[in-house]
Amino acid sequence: MKRSERLVDMVKYLLARPHTLIALPFFADRYGAAKSSISEDLAILRQTLANDQNGILETVAGAAGGVRYIPFVGKKEATNYLHDLADRIEDPDRILPGNFVYLSDILGSPQDLQQIGQLIATKYAYSNVDYVMTIETKGIAIAQAVSRFLNVPFVMVRRRPKITEGSTISVNYVASSSERVEKMELAKRLLPEGSNVLIVDDFMKGGGTLTGMEELVKEFKGTVAGMCVLCETKYASQKVVDDYQSLIKITEVDRTKKLIKVRPGNFLEQTDFNRFPK
Amino acid sequence: MKRSERLVDMVKYLLARPHTLIALPFFADRYGAAKSSISEDLAILRQTLANDQNGILETVAGAAGGVRYIPFVGKKEATNYLHDLADRIEDPDRILPGNFVYLSDILGSPQDLQQIGQLIATKYAYSNVDYVMTIETKGIAIAQAVSRFLNVPFVMVRRRPKITEGSTISVNYVASSSERVEKMELAKRLLPEGSNVLIVDDFMKGGGTLTGMEELVKEFKGTVAGMCVLCETKYASQKVVDDYQSLIKITEVDRTKKLIKVRPGNFLEQTDFNRFPK
Repeated sequence: MKRSERLVDMVKYLLARPHTLIALPFFADRYGAAKSSISEDLAILRQTLANDQNGILETVAGAAGGVRYIPFVGKKEATNYLHDLADRIEDPDRILPGNFVYLSDILGSPQDLQQIGQLIATKYAYSNVDYVMTIETKGIAIAQAVSRFLNVPFVMVRRRPKITEGSTISVNYVASSSERVEKMELAKRLLPEGSNVLIVDDFMKGGGTLTGMEELVKEFKGTVAGMCVLCETKYASQKVVDDYQSLIKITEVDRTKKLIKVRPGNFLEQTDFNRFPK
Repeated sequence: MKRSERLVDMVKYLLARPHTLIALPFFADRYGAAKSSISEDLAILRQTLANDQNGILETVAGAAGGVRYIPFVGKKEATNYLHDLADRIEDPDRILPGNFVYLSDILGSPQDLQQIGQLIATKYAYSNVDYVMTIETKGIAIAQAVSRFLNVPFVMVRRRPKITEGSTISVNYVASSSERVEKMELAKRLLPEGSNVLIVDDFMKGGGTLTGMEELVKEFKGTVAGMCVLCETKYASQKVVDDYQSLIKITEVDRTKKLIKVRPGNFLEQTDFNRFPK
C-alpha cells in the first residue's frame, strides 16, 4: 500500500478513536509496511495537525508505546467560533416568556455540537476524565458531544425516577430557576466508584443543579474533574459555585425591551491552548 | 504543500462535514495546488474508502460540482457489529424488574453510538432526510449519533411541556408499555413545515410512540423518511406499525428464569449495502 493510501486510512482510523493508544506494530501489520515507513507517515500526520492547530498526535515512546490522537482546537478557532455563537444567540427573537432563552436549535445542530464538544474536550484533554455527567434533558446533547471527543462514556442524571435503569442513588438540591428543593438520581451501575467525572450542562443560572451533581459524584466516591456549561446567565443572588467554565455568557436579557446581550464566557481565558508541538 | 499533507487535511476536513458538497476550487485554493493534483488526491481518497468499504466519496460533475463524503458502512462490518452488540445485550444481568432491559451503558458509550449512528446513516444515506426526530429521553443519544453522520439537525419531542422552547404542537398517543393515552409535543420553531423526517428511538414494544411521532410529523405537514429503533422486543398484541427497522431484536426475556435471547433485527436484510464504487 502506498503512503498516500496509508495516510487516508490512518487519519480515518485515529479520528474514530480519540485518546486511544495505538501501537506502531498495529499499523505496520495493517498496511504490511516497515515500522520506519509508519514512523514517517505519523510524522507527516503530526506536523499537518500542528500546522492547522487542530488536533494533536501524541507519541508515547518505549516498548508499550505508540501514538494517540487528541482532539484539540487552537485559540484562534475557539475565539472565532465563540464570538460567532454569541452573535447568533444575541437575537431578541430568542427571548421567551419569563426571559428564558431559546437554544434548542443549537442543541440539535450537528455542526455546533461538534464545535462545542471539541472545545470542551480541549480544555479537559489532559484531565484524565473517566466519565462525563449531565442531567436530563438538554444537557444530554452537550455531554454526548464531549464524550465523543474525550472518548469516555457519559452518564445521565435523572430528575424523575425511571424503571428501566435499576437501583439508584439520589441527592436533593435547590434549583436556582425555581428556588425549590428537588431530587436528582443516578443509576448505580452506570458510574463505577472512584471515577473522575466531568460535569456538563446546557444552562446555568445560580449553579444549584451543578452543585447537586457535584454531591452526587461524592456519593459515588468520585472526584470532579471540572464543571462546564454552554451558557451562563446573570443571576440576582450569588452563584453557589465558582469553579466552573462557561462557553457563552448572557449578560442581559429583557423580553419587554427586546434586549439580549451575549458574549463568550470565561472559557477562553481559563483554557491552556499552548499544547501544540513546534 | 505535499500530497501527503494535503490528504491528511482533506480527510479531516471531509469527515467533519458529511453529506456536504465541497467544490474542487475550494481545495485548490486551500492548498495552493492545481486542480489536476486535487483530482488525483480525491481519486486516491475515493479508492481507499471503497477498498475499506467504509465511506463513499461521491463526485458531482459540472460547473457547480465537487465532492461529497457519505458515511457508509459495508455489510460485513455492519453484520459483525450487530452480532457483537446482540451478544453483549444477551446478558441476564441486564434484565430489570418488569422484564425491562438495561441499555443505558450502550446509550452512553461513544464507540457504540458511533457505530449505531453510522449504521442508521448508511440505511438512510440517499433518503434526503432533512431532520432526525426522537422523543425524550433515551432516544436522544440515537438521534444525535445519526444527526452527526447525516449532518442534519435533530429535534426532540417532549413528553412533558417545557417553558424554554416556546409554543408547541401536540398529539395524543397510546404508549405500548403502559397502554395509557399520553401526550407528546414539539416546539413549533424547531421543525419547518414540509420537512422529510427520519424518526428514531432507543426501544420499541408495540410501536405506539413511533405512531405518535408519525402523527406529529403530519401535523407539521412533513413526510416520514423512515423509522428506526435500536432495539425492538416481542410484544403480546399486534404492533401498530410495520414499516420500521430495528438494529437489534430481543426475542425472549424472562427475569424469573434469567433468560434473555437477542439477535440482529430486520435492519441487515432491509438495507442496500451495494453502493460502493468498483
